[in-house]
Amino acid sequence: MNQDATEQRVLGAVGERRELVNAAIDEDLPMAEPKRLYEAARYLLEAGGKRLRPTVTLLAAEAVSDVEPLSADYRAFPSLYDEPVDVMAAAVSLEVIQSFTLIHDDIMDDDDLRRGVPAVHKAYDTETAILAGDTLYSKAFEIMADTGAHAENGLEAVRMLASTCTRICEGQALDVQFETEGDIDPDQYLEMVEFKTAVLYGAAAATPAVLLGADDEVVEALYRYGIDSGSAFQIQDDVLDLTVPSDKLGKQRGSDLVEEKETLIALHARQQGVDVDGLVAATDPENVTDAEIEDAVAALEAAGSIDYARETARDLTEQAKSRLEILPDNEARSLLEDIADYLITRGY
Amino acid sequence: MNQDATEQRVLGAVGERRELVNAAIDEDLPMAEPKRLYEAARYLLEAGGKRLRPTVTLLAAEAVSDVEPLSADYRAFPSLYDEPVDVMAAAVSLEVIQSFTLIHDDIMDDDDLRRGVPAVHKAYDTETAILAGDTLYSKAFEIMADTGAHAENGLEAVRMLASTCTRICEGQALDVQFETEGDIDPDQYLEMVEFKTAVLYGAAAATPAVLLGADDEVVEALYRYGIDSGSAFQIQDDVLDLTVPSDKLGKQRGSDLVEEKETLIALHARQQGVDVDGLVAATDPENVTDAEIEDAVAALEAAGSIDYARETARDLTEQAKSRLEILPDNEARSLLEDIADYLITRGY
Repeated sequence: MNQDATEQRVLGAVGERRELVNAAIDEDLPMAEPKRLYEAARYLLEAGGKRLRPTVTLLAAEAVSDVEPLSADYRAFPSLYDEPVDVMAAAVSLEVIQSFTLIHDDIMDDDDLRRGVPAVHKAYDTETAILAGDTLYSKAFEIMADTGAHAENGLEAVRMLASTCTRICEGQALDVQFETEGDIDPDQYLEMVEFKTAVLYGAAAATPAVLLGADDEVVEALYRYGIDSGSAFQIQDDVLDLTVPSDKLGKQRGSDLVEEKETLIALHARQQGVDVDGLVAATDPENVTDAEIEDAVAALEAAGSIDYARETARDLTEQAKSRLEILPDNEARSLLEDIADYLITRGY
Repeated sequence: MNQDATEQRVLGAVGERRELVNAAIDEDLPMAEPKRLYEAARYLLEAGGKRLRPTVTLLAAEAVSDVEPLSADYRAFPSLYDEPVDVMAAAVSLEVIQSFTLIHDDIMDDDDLRRGVPAVHKAYDTETAILAGDTLYSKAFEIMADTGAHAENGLEAVRMLASTCTRICEGQALDVQFETEGDIDPDQYLEMVEFKTAVLYGAAAATPAVLLGADDEVVEALYRYGIDSGSAFQIQDDVLDLTVPSDKLGKQRGSDLVEEKETLIALHARQQGVDVDGLVAATDPENVTDAEIEDAVAALEAAGSIDYARETARDLTEQAKSRLEILPDNEARSLLEDIADYLITRGY
């Protein structure tokens, strides 16, 4: 695998769809009254984002239906039934859900910045941010219920969306619980990551298969593809936090260590007898020295913990790609494989 | 109309269904992991509530299908199709949505008490309360998507639930906006009340008709019944705040005036030239005297503003009842009429 070529293909596929996705978001979530509410609700969606998840949805539709990428209308995509399906609406719905979770997460974590702009509860206020998130939540269901799919499939897509949202809430609650409890094992950590982050990738990959009327095994395979690659993505995030220089990372390198965040790396190191909480004395990322981080990373390297995380991410990625073997061997499927690779080879 | 007899019939109908509704809530929203999250999510639902809205849903199912009240299984209700429909699940779903809105509203308004117990963000913390509300939100969609109704109808019920939630958010945002803007007219106020409060009554009444496959006109009539009677209910709340003694009301009489809340009464009085904001000098309900409230109420009576609100509520109630004429003349319909009356004749 040539890493640069993979990255180029992925960024190309994302780039070719980004304007379509952005236009669809604008169509499906138009400005409305009360103005301040809808401005706050659209704020983060307008602030950008790669649109990787919507690209997964659109490619999954093309892979399942075995059509040439970008050859069919995403708003009226050919299904196994008479009805054409608006698979773009599904992509928008999931991106809207993602935006809702970011807004509420930023309130809960009291994070000031998101995507380089003030978080919604900072740009507006907490009340408006709660309400903007709640509005996106219902809008996502309105949009998902309106794809024109065969009703059985439309209803199943709504069910998947609802259970995905429940899982995300459970994952966020587990994350908070783990921070206070400690004493969790890697399997519990992986479940938390699956719930909090990966299920949305699972839904992004599987929903078009549901809407288009694919077999249950195809739906399940795409869902697991998303879970596996989304989990790998999150684990890679933990690796990058320790291994990428601060200026490239856009935040202090090693801030997870400073904040004593439970990561797969920390859990592994603790199992190896490393005093993880004692590795860095500073309690604020602004006060930590590069030398302190270097020493901490060296200790984690020596314990094999960073390699363990890398290998876990790599295994999950291989598993993700193997899930796709049930699909026809086509260009869209190949791009989905590339995306799985990209999620753990991206530099930051 | 005999007011006491009406009240007795309504409280009887509610009482006969309350245990069924409570058991169904427990079944459809069971305790789960993470425990703290689900405890917080179930907290207000367990704290009580009359279950008037679920009763409307169950009666509407019986009125539409023209079956004797309590003669059919709410979990497997006869529909126009082969599939029996779990209309109880629809009632639970809407009660779960109501609970979500209460939790988030209490955070936004920083209210400490709800139903005689601490608000969820006080009993737990704000982060848990946001997340508990978000969990109820998705659970409500899971429950509504699982009624066993014909898929077209199931999907339509989900659409109605989603647009109802959007409206509630818009109504809450309008309410906040009105508090700061002032200068609104009664029509704008009524729209806010419709969005914030009455749409949930509309959905409670109309959803069973959707699920059971009733004609569009029946769905629309029940929806408008709920909107009209729900709006009347909210306006009556404003009247009661001024006319019921504090000990019966459970809070300081006239607290809306003290807090300078925009109500239909205040808007009407201002149009009549009354200096509404100057009626009560106190800015905290704890510091206001009964004499001050008496004088303020006398001024509002003199301006005809309290009568105006009473008449508006009464007109809306009559309109609500007339909407039901499209239904067969049966016991359940008669109870729905009684509920509309009860919503504006209840003492507090």
